[in-house]
Amino acid sequence: MNLEQFPSKLLERAVSETAKLPGVGRKSALRLVLHLLRKDASQTHALADSLLRLRDEVKYCDCCHNIADSGRCEICANPQRDKSIICVVENVQNVMAVEATGQFQGVYHVLGGVISPMDGIGPSDLQIESLLKRIAEGGVKEVIFALNPTMEGDTTNFYISRRIASLGLPEGSVRLSVLARGICVGDDLEYTDEVTLGRSIVDRVALKS
Amino acid sequence: MNLEQFPSKLLERAVSETAKLPGVGRKSALRLVLHLLRKDASQTHALADSLLRLRDEVKYCDCCHNIADSGRCEICANPQRDKSIICVVENVQNVMAVEATGQFQGVYHVLGGVISPMDGIGPSDLQIESLLKRIAEGGVKEVIFALNPTMEGDTTNFYISRRIASLGLPEGSVRLSVLARGICVGDDLEYTDEVTLGRSIVDRVALKS
Repeated sequence: MNLEQFPSKLLERAVSETAKLPGVGRKSALRLVLHLLRKDASQTHALADSLLRLRDEVKYCDCCHNIADSGRCEICANPQRDKSIICVVENVQNVMAVEATGQFQGVYHVLGGVISPMDGIGPSDLQIESLLKRIAEGGVKEVIFALNPTMEGDTTNFYISRRIASLGLPEGSVRLSVLARGICVGDDLEYTDEVTLGRSIVDRVALKS
Repeated sequence: MNLEQFPSKLLERAVSETAKLPGVGRKSALRLVLHLLRKDASQTHALADSLLRLRDEVKYCDCCHNIADSGRCEICANPQRDKSIICVVENVQNVMAVEATGQFQGVYHVLGGVISPMDGIGPSDLQIESLLKRIAEGGVKEVIFALNPTMEGDTTNFYISRRIASLGLPEGSVRLSVLARGICVGDDLEYTDEVTLGRSIVDRVALKS
C-alpha cells in the first residue's frame, strides 16, 4: 500500500508524527490514528494531555536521576531504603525491573546510558560524576553494577570501578559487585549459550542444604 | 517486570493512556513514552498537536464518507475521476489500498464497516442508505464491491446487491461486480489454500496472447 496518498493533510500529519515513535511504521501509525478517530474524542485528549504533561512537567531525582514527580524520587525519599547500597543501572526501565524482583532494599543510580564509542556516548554523557560524588561523600558500603551484560555494559562497569578506585577511599570501605551471570532459572542447559554456561561453572556457588 | 510500580504518577498516566492503543502493551507503551522523554519536547508537542487537530477537525466527505479536509474529498472533487463507477469499500485504509494500485479511476463509497451480527453491526450502522441514494440519483453504471473476502464481506455484498435490485432501476443499467478472487501474483500453488485455488479455476480467464 502506497502510504503517500493520504486523503487528508490532517491525517497525513498525524500518521507522520506517530510513525516517528520507535518500532512504529507508517502502516501501524495509520492503524493507531484511525483507531483514535473511531473512539470518543476524550480518549485522544487524555492521551495527548498525558504525554504533554509528562514531557513538560517530568522531573528527575536530584540524587539518583530516576524519574520523579518532585526533586527526590520515592525510593531515595523512603527512609526504609538502605542508602549505603547503591545499585547502578542504565535507565528507568531497569530500576523498575530490579524493583519488581523485590530483592533489593538499597537505592539506585541511573546513569542514563552506557559508554558506547560506536554510538558516540562517552563517560561525560552519563551521570558518572554525581555517582562518584555520592560515593566520595561517604556512607556507601557497596556499589552493585546492574548494567546489561554486554560489551558496553562491561566497559562502563570497568570505567566506573577505576574511577571509584581513584577516589582514594580507605581500602575495602566500598565493596564493588556485579549481577551474577549464569543459567536462567527454568532454562535448559542444552540451549544455554556456551559463554553463559561457562560463566556459570566458573562462578558456581555453594549448594544450600 | 512488574509495571505497577511506576516512579512517577505522570509517567504512569502517560503509559496507561498509550497502552489503550490497539496492539500496544504496557511494556511497549513505557518504551514509547520514555523515548519521547529522551527526545526534544517539540516532538511530543508535534505528536500531541497532530492527534488533537485530526480528532477535533477531521471531516468526512459528504458524498463518499472518506476522510477529507473539507466537505468533499479530493477524489470526489477531482473532475478527472469517473463518477459513473463506484467502488464500495469498508474503510479509509481500503480506499488507500485501491488507490495505491493506480488501476481505478472511478470514485469510492466508504461503508464504515461490514455487516457482522457477531459484533452487533447491522446494515443501519453502515453508510448503505447514502450509497443507495447515490445510485438512485442516476448516472452510475457500475458498482464494484471491494470488501474483504470474508463471510461478513460477502454478506454485506449480498445485502447491498439485494437493496440495489429493489430500487427498481431499468434492467442492466447498473452493473454489479466484485473483486476477482484467485491465486496471488507470485504465489506458489502448493501453498495456496484449496478454496482460493478452486475459485481461481472456476473463475479462470482467457489467456492473453
